[in-house]
Amino acid sequence: MDYMNAPGRNHLFVPGPVNIPESVLRAMNRNNEDYRSPAIPAMTKILLEDVKKIFKTTTGTPFIFPTTGTGAWESALTNTLSPGDRIVSFSIGQFSLLWIDQQKRLKFDVDVIESEWGYGADLDALASKLAADTAHTIKAICIVHNETATGVTNNLNSVRKLLDHYMHPALILVDGVSSICALDFRMDEWGIDVALTGSQKALSLPTGLGIVCASPKAIEAAKTSKSLRVFFDWNDYLKFYKIGTYWPYTPSIQLLYGLRAALDLLFEEGLENVFARHRRLGKATRLAVEAWGLKNCTQKEEWVSDTVTAVMVPAYIDSAEVVRRAWQRYNLSLGLGLNKVAGKVFRIGHLGNLNDLQLLGCLSGVEMILKDIGYPIKFGTGVAAAASYLQNTIPMIPSRI
Amino acid sequence: MDYMNAPGRNHLFVPGPVNIPESVLRAMNRNNEDYRSPAIPAMTKILLEDVKKIFKTTTGTPFIFPTTGTGAWESALTNTLSPGDRIVSFSIGQFSLLWIDQQKRLKFDVDVIESEWGYGADLDALASKLAADTAHTIKAICIVHNETATGVTNNLNSVRKLLDHYMHPALILVDGVSSICALDFRMDEWGIDVALTGSQKALSLPTGLGIVCASPKAIEAAKTSKSLRVFFDWNDYLKFYKIGTYWPYTPSIQLLYGLRAALDLLFEEGLENVFARHRRLGKATRLAVEAWGLKNCTQKEEWVSDTVTAVMVPAYIDSAEVVRRAWQRYNLSLGLGLNKVAGKVFRIGHLGNLNDLQLLGCLSGVEMILKDIGYPIKFGTGVAAAASYLQNTIPMIPSRI
Amino acid sequence: MDYMNAPGRNHLFVPGPVNIPESVLRAMNRNNEDYRSPAIPAMTKILLEDVKKIFKTTTGTPFIFPTTGTGAWESALTNTLSPGDRIVSFSIGQFSLLWIDQQKRLKFDVDVIESEWGYGADLDALASKLAADTAHTIKAICIVHNETATGVTNNLNSVRKLLDHYMHPALILVDGVSSICALDFRMDEWGIDVALTGSQKALSLPTGLGIVCASPKAIEAAKTSKSLRVFFDWNDYLKFYKIGTYWPYTPSIQLLYGLRAALDLLFEEGLENVFARHRRLGKATRLAVEAWGLKNCTQKEEWVSDTVTAVMVPAYIDSAEVVRRAWQRYNLSLGLGLNKVAGKVFRIGHLGNLNDLQLLGCLSGVEMILKDIGYPIKFGTGVAAAASYLQNTIPMIPSRI
Amino acid sequence: MDYMNAPGRNHLFVPGPVNIPESVLRAMNRNNEDYRSPAIPAMTKILLEDVKKIFKTTTGTPFIFPTTGTGAWESALTNTLSPGDRIVSFSIGQFSLLWIDQQKRLKFDVDVIESEWGYGADLDALASKLAADTAHTIKAICIVHNETATGVTNNLNSVRKLLDHYMHPALILVDGVSSICALDFRMDEWGIDVALTGSQKALSLPTGLGIVCASPKAIEAAKTSKSLRVFFDWNDYLKFYKIGTYWPYTPSIQLLYGLRAALDLLFEEGLENVFARHRRLGKATRLAVEAWGLKNCTQKEEWVSDTVTAVMVPAYIDSAEVVRRAWQRYNLSLGLGLNKVAGKVFRIGHLGNLNDLQLLGCLSGVEMILKDIGYPIKFGTGVAAAASYLQNTIPMIPSRI
Repeated sequence: MDYMNAPGRNHLFVPGPVNIPESVLRAMNRNNEDYRSPAIPAMTKILLEDVKKIFKTTTGTPFIFPTTGTGAWESALTNTLSPGDRIVSFSIGQFSLLWIDQQKRLKFDVDVIESEWGYGADLDALASKLAADTAHTIKAICIVHNETATGVTNNLNSVRKLLDHYMHPALILVDGVSSICALDFRMDEWGIDVALTGSQKALSLPTGLGIVCASPKAIEAAKTSKSLRVFFDWNDYLKFYKIGTYWPYTPSIQLLYGLRAALDLLFEEGLENVFARHRRLGKATRLAVEAWGLKNCTQKEEWVSDTVTAVMVPAYIDSAEVVRRAWQRYNLSLGLGLNKVAGKVFRIGHLGNLNDLQLLGCLSGVEMILKDIGYPIKFGTGVAAAASYLQNTIPMIPSRI
Repeated sequence: MDYMNAPGRNHLFVPGPVNIPESVLRAMNRNNEDYRSPAIPAMTKILLEDVKKIFKTTTGTPFIFPTTGTGAWESALTNTLSPGDRIVSFSIGQFSLLWIDQQKRLKFDVDVIESEWGYGADLDALASKLAADTAHTIKAICIVHNETATGVTNNLNSVRKLLDHYMHPALILVDGVSSICALDFRMDEWGIDVALTGSQKALSLPTGLGIVCASPKAIEAAKTSKSLRVFFDWNDYLKFYKIGTYWPYTPSIQLLYGLRAALDLLFEEGLENVFARHRRLGKATRLAVEAWGLKNCTQKEEWVSDTVTAVMVPAYIDSAEVVRRAWQRYNLSLGLGLNKVAGKVFRIGHLGNLNDLQLLGCLSGVEMILKDIGYPIKFGTGVAAAASYLQNTIPMIPSRI
Repeated sequence: MDYMNAPGRNHLFVPGPVNIPESVLRAMNRNNEDYRSPAIPAMTKILLEDVKKIFKTTTGTPFIFPTTGTGAWESALTNTLSPGDRIVSFSIGQFSLLWIDQQKRLKFDVDVIESEWGYGADLDALASKLAADTAHTIKAICIVHNETATGVTNNLNSVRKLLDHYMHPALILVDGVSSICALDFRMDEWGIDVALTGSQKALSLPTGLGIVCASPKAIEAAKTSKSLRVFFDWNDYLKFYKIGTYWPYTPSIQLLYGLRAALDLLFEEGLENVFARHRRLGKATRLAVEAWGLKNCTQKEEWVSDTVTAVMVPAYIDSAEVVRRAWQRYNLSLGLGLNKVAGKVFRIGHLGNLNDLQLLGCLSGVEMILKDIGYPIKFGTGVAAAASYLQNTIPMIPSRI
Repeated sequence: MDYMNAPGRNHLFVPGPVNIPESVLRAMNRNNEDYRSPAIPAMTKILLEDVKKIFKTTTGTPFIFPTTGTGAWESALTNTLSPGDRIVSFSIGQFSLLWIDQQKRLKFDVDVIESEWGYGADLDALASKLAADTAHTIKAICIVHNETATGVTNNLNSVRKLLDHYMHPALILVDGVSSICALDFRMDEWGIDVALTGSQKALSLPTGLGIVCASPKAIEAAKTSKSLRVFFDWNDYLKFYKIGTYWPYTPSIQLLYGLRAALDLLFEEGLENVFARHRRLGKATRLAVEAWGLKNCTQKEEWVSDTVTAVMVPAYIDSAEVVRRAWQRYNLSLGLGLNKVAGKVFRIGHLGNLNDLQLLGCLSGVEMILKDIGYPIKFGTGVAAAASYLQNTIPMIPSRI
C-alpha cells in the first residue's frame, strides 16, 4: 500500500523539504541531456549570475554542488580552513550541533559557544573571545543564520560589527539553509565570507543542490587551505569556470532547469516581497500559537524565525504524538522535536512556495490535533488570530490586478 | 505575465474542474501511443468493467466519449429519443436549464417542470403528469442529480418509485456530472436508464471524457432512435466492443491512463468512504456558512448538496466581488453565481480529490474575503464550526495506521 | 504486465497519434484551473488568433472543440448544411469513406465520386457534375486533403479553380486531419470554407481537440442550417466569443496549455520550414520503399503524401504481420492496412514532431522486419537511399548555429 | 532561444547521462515529502535490498549518496583507506586518470600502472607488484571496470585471482560507473570490496545518486580509516540504518522514487537480459565501425566495451567536428574525445534504456556526419552490418508476445 495514497493533497509543513511549485515541477520533467553541449554552459553562466542575487552579492563566487546542506557545510569548511585551525562556533540547536560535530570530525579546533536551546547565538561570549584573541588565532566564526530545530534567527550583521570592532580578520561562515530566499540575507553588506543553502528549502526544489557562495577573501583562503578535498573543491570549479564549461563532473540537468524556474518565480515575485511574505506567515503562525495558549520555543522576540516555528507543548503531551496524528489522520506533515526538545516541541515550517490559505489550513489542522490529544483548545482561536492579522496585510497578486 | 504565477498553490474550489491528484498527473505524463496496438484494447476492456462500478451497475453498458458533459447530454438524448418525443424535464437551476435548452434545440417536445432556484425537482408535478399520461406519451424523464448552480441534490429513487407506482415505461435520464463518484449513485437499484458524468468533476481528471452508462432498455431504445448522430452514436461503439477494438475513433491515450489511475485511487479509498468524505466536507461547509450568519441557497435540508454549496450574500454585497477578491488576493478559486443568482451567491465546490485541511484553508479564506468586502464577520467562527464537526468524524488514513 | 515496458523508446510511426514533444508534455503537466477566471479567456483570445495562422487565414473563424476529428467532421457538416442538402464527396480511402458514411447518416444527399484506392480525387468527375449543376443544387464539396489510409494528397486549389470556373457557389469542406501543420494549407488563398484538424496529428498533442476553421461564408451558412446540433454548434461559441468568455462549456485546461506550447514550437521552427521538413521526410521514405523494391500504394507522383506512406507488400506477405512484428519485436508502431487494403499495405506515418534520425531508425527497423517475414531485402538499401537524399537537404538547427 | 527546441527527439548517445525511461520520468514527477515520515524509511529498506541485486551481492552493504560518481569515488577511498596508504591504480584513460588525481590529492601513496590509451589494465604489472609486496604494503587496488573515455572493459575477476594467487589482502575498489546495470558485475563472486556507480549511467536516472556498495571487509576497514570525512562517511549511514530511519541527512525524494521505478524496469526485463541487450548493441556498433573502415580505439577484442565505443577518425578529420555536426545538424549527441584522444576519437554511448532502432538511427546519423566532413563513406554500410547482426539476435518483447 502506498503511504501517499490519501484523499487530497499532502499538507507539507516540515521546515524542508518544502512544496515544489508546479512550474518548477514542469521545468524538471525532462530527459537527460549531454552536459558538454553548448546548451548547459550557456544556461549555467546565467544561473551563476542569478544565484549571486539570492545572496545579495556582486563580489561573491557561487558554486552549485550536486549535494545537500551537509555537503555544502563540508565544502565551506574544507575550502577555507586547514586541520587544526581554531574556529568559534555557536551551539544553539540540533543543526548548529551537527555542524559542530562535522567541524570537530574534520579536525578543526572548535571553540564552542553554547546557548540554551531557544536562545540565539551568544554574541557577548563572542565579543570576549575576540577581545582576547589579539593574536588572531581564530580563523573563522561559524554561525547558523536560522536554527531550524528551535526556530531561532541570529543577527548576522552583529557578528560582522563585532569583528570590525575588534578589527579581527576571522572569516564568517554562515549556514543559510533555512533562511536564504526566505529571510533577508545580505552577503556583501554584512561581510559574510561563505554562505550556503540547500535546494529543498526556500528555493522550493527537490533535494540535490548545495549552493555555496564565497567572498573574494574566502576564495583566497581556498588557495592555501590544507584540508583534503576533491569533490567539494572550489578550485576545480574555478578551473572549469575559466574555460567556460563550468562543471568538473556531471551536474543534474533536471535540477539546473528547476533552479532556473525557481529563480524565475522568486524574481517575478520580487525578493523583498518574498521576504515580506515570510514575515507575514511567520507572524501569523506565532499569533496562532499565542492564541492557543502555547509557548514558542524561541525565547525572545529578537530571535523569532519567519521560516519555522517550534511550538512547545505542555508536559503531559508528547509532541511526537502531535506529528504522528497529523500524518495519520490529517495528511499534514509537521516537524518533529529533535534531540533536546524531542517530545517537547513540534515544528511548523512556513518557508518556500507557500501562501496564506495553505498556512491557515495547516493551523486549523493543528487545532484539531491538539483537541485529539487532549489539549483544551477552543476551535478557531488560532486561525482567527492569524487571519485577522493576515487579512490586513496580504497584498493583491500582481499578475491578477 | 502568467496569471498562475502567484506564491503557493492555487486553492481550487470551483465545483469543477477540480484538483487532480498527483498520481493521476503522473499517469498522464506520457507520450502518445498507437491506439490500435493490443495495449489499448486490453486496458479499455478492464476500464469499462471498472467504470460500471462507479455507476453501481452490473447490467449497464458504459461509453467513454472524448467529449464534455454537454456532449454526454447530447449522447444520452439522441441515442434514446427521436425528434418530437415528449420528455419531462425539471428546471431547477442553470445546468438543468442548459440541458433543457439542448433538449429543445434537438427538437424534443419538452414538458418543463419549474422549481424556484434553490428548490429540488417538483415530484408532485411529475406525479400529476404521470397520472395523466395513461397513453404513455412521455418517453423520458430528464433530471439532474445534483444541480451545480444552486447546490441542490435531487432524490432519484423517488422518481423511480413514481414511475413504478404509475407503471409508466418512461426512461429516466440522469445528469450525474457533479454527483457521480462523490454522492451515492445506484443505477441498477434505482432503475436509471442513462446516467452520465464528466471527467473533470468527482473523477478528478482533466476535462475531456464524457462518460455515459446505458441500461439494457436504453440500449434497446438506441436501436430505433431516429435522432441523427454519428460521433455520439452508441451503436458504433457497440460494434467495436464486439470486435474487441473498442474505439470507433481515436481516444485520448493520456486520459485513459489517467482514468485508470483515478479509478484506482477511488477503489483504494473505497467508494463508500469517498461518499462519506463528501458528506463530511459538505456538512462542514454548511456549518461554516451557518456560523457566518449566511444562508445556503438550498431551501430545504433534504436537498442539500455534498459536492457544492451555493452561499447567499446579503443584498448589499455583490457575490461576483467575493469571487474576484478570492482570485486576486487569496489565490482561491470560487464559483460564480450563474444566471438568476448572479451576484447573489458564490459557490464553494467540495468535490473530488480533496481533504479536510484543504477545505478549512478555503473556509478561512472566505472569512477574510467577507471581511474585505464589509460583511461583519467574526474571524474563526466558520472554521471553528466546521472543525469541531470534522474533528469528531475524520477517519484515520488507512495506509498510515 | 504493462505492454509499454520494453527497453528504450517506443518508435511511434503510425500516422497519428504522433509523438508529443517534451516541451508540450511539460506544458500539460498541471493541475486543473477555473476556466471562468480571467486567465483562460486571456489565453484563449491569443490562441484563437494563432490558430488562424496554421490555416493561413485572416478572415476565418476558428473553433477549438473538445472532441476528435470525427466530431470536427460533424461540426463542419451540421453547421453549414441542412438534412437533404446535396453534397459531392470523394471516396478515395478509408477516412473519406468514414466521412461519407457520416454524411449519409446525417441525412445529406451524398453524391459520391469514387476513385480506386491509391488514386486521388477524380476532379474530372467533379467538373462534369458542376457543369451539369446549373441549378446549383450542390451545396458543398467534401474532400479529404490527405487520405491517411492510402497516403494520397489531393490538390485542393484545383477544386477551388473548378468551382470558380463554373461560377458555382458550393462550399468547400476540407478534412485536413493528417495535413494541417504538416502540408501547406492555404485556407484564404484556396477559398476553403471549412477546414478541420485533430490535435493528435501534426500538432503533436494528445487526442482531444477538434479544431475547425470557418470562412465568413460558412459562418453565414451556420445561421440558417437546419441540422440539429448543440455541442457542435458554432453559434454557441460565437455568442461566447462576443462576451469574451469564449467557452460555452468546460474546455480542457491542459490541452489549451499544450496547444500554446505546440504552436510556439511550430512558429519557432517556422511553418514553411515545418512543411519543408515533412517534404524531406516523405521523399526519404519513398526513396527507401523504392530501394526495397516495394511499391507505394499511391499511384501517381502528383498525389504522394508527405505525412504518410502506404507501402504495398507482395501477395505472399500479410502486411498485418509486418505491423505485428514491428510491435512485438522492435518496439516500432506502424500503421495497419485498413479495409480494402488490409493485409496489403502497412503504413509509415512521418508527420508531426519528428526528425531525420528518428525516421532512419524506423526505416532500418522495417528492413529487419521485412527480412523476418521472408522478403528478400538487402540490409541498408532503404536507409542508404533515404540518407543520401537527406544528407544533402537537412538544414542546420537554427538555435544551435 | 532554447537550444533544445529542435524538431523531434534529441538522440542522446553520450556515454552518460543517458535516456530516462518514461516510467521513471513519471515516477519522479512529484512534490517533496517529509523524509522523516514512515513512508520514506519503508521505501528505503526495500530499495537497499534491491540495490544489492544490481551489484550481485548478498553480503555487501549499499549506500545511496546524494552525489555523483566523483563523490562516490571519494566515499570509497576515504572510508577504507588512511592518508599515506599505498594503493595500486591503473591508468588507462581519462576517468581512471581523474580517479588517480583524486587519490593523490587525498594523500594516498598511489602506485600507478600505466597502459596506453585503448589498452586494458596491465595485470602482469600488477602481478609483479603483488609478488614483490610480501610485506603487504599495498592496501588497495583501484580499477575502473569500464573506462568510458576509450571504451575499454577490464577483467575484474583476473584481479581477484591474482590477489588470491599471491594471498594478498589488499582491497579491490572498483569504479563501475559505466558498467553496473549494463555489464555483468559480480561483487561477491569476484570478491570486490567496494563497487560504485552513478544514477545517470546504466540506471538511466538523472544525475544525483552515487551508489556505493561495501563488502564486510570494507565495512571493517571503515571503522579504522583515518581519512577525514563526514558527508561521505559510511558510519553515519550505518548508525541510521540501525535505528531504521536510514538517512543521516535529507535524501532526494524524487530520485528515490525514480530509483524504485528504474529497478522495477531492470528487474522486469531481467538483469541477464539487460546485459545481453548491451552485448548486442555493443557488437552491432562495432560491426558498423568496421564496415565504415574505421578503427575502434580499443586495441584488443578482450577489452571491447558493450557500453561505449570510441571510434577513431583518420588524421585529416577532427573528431570534435563530428560531435559538433551531430549536435548542430542532426540533433544527435555524441561523446567527445577527451584528453589524449581529443580530436582523435568520438564516442557512441550505447548503455542504459536503449533499443535497437534507436541505435540504428544513431548509426545512420553518424554515416551522414562522416559524409558531411569528407570521409569517403558508403551510405548504409554500417547500418547494414549492424542490422544483419541484430535481426538475428533481437528477442521478442516479453510483455507483447
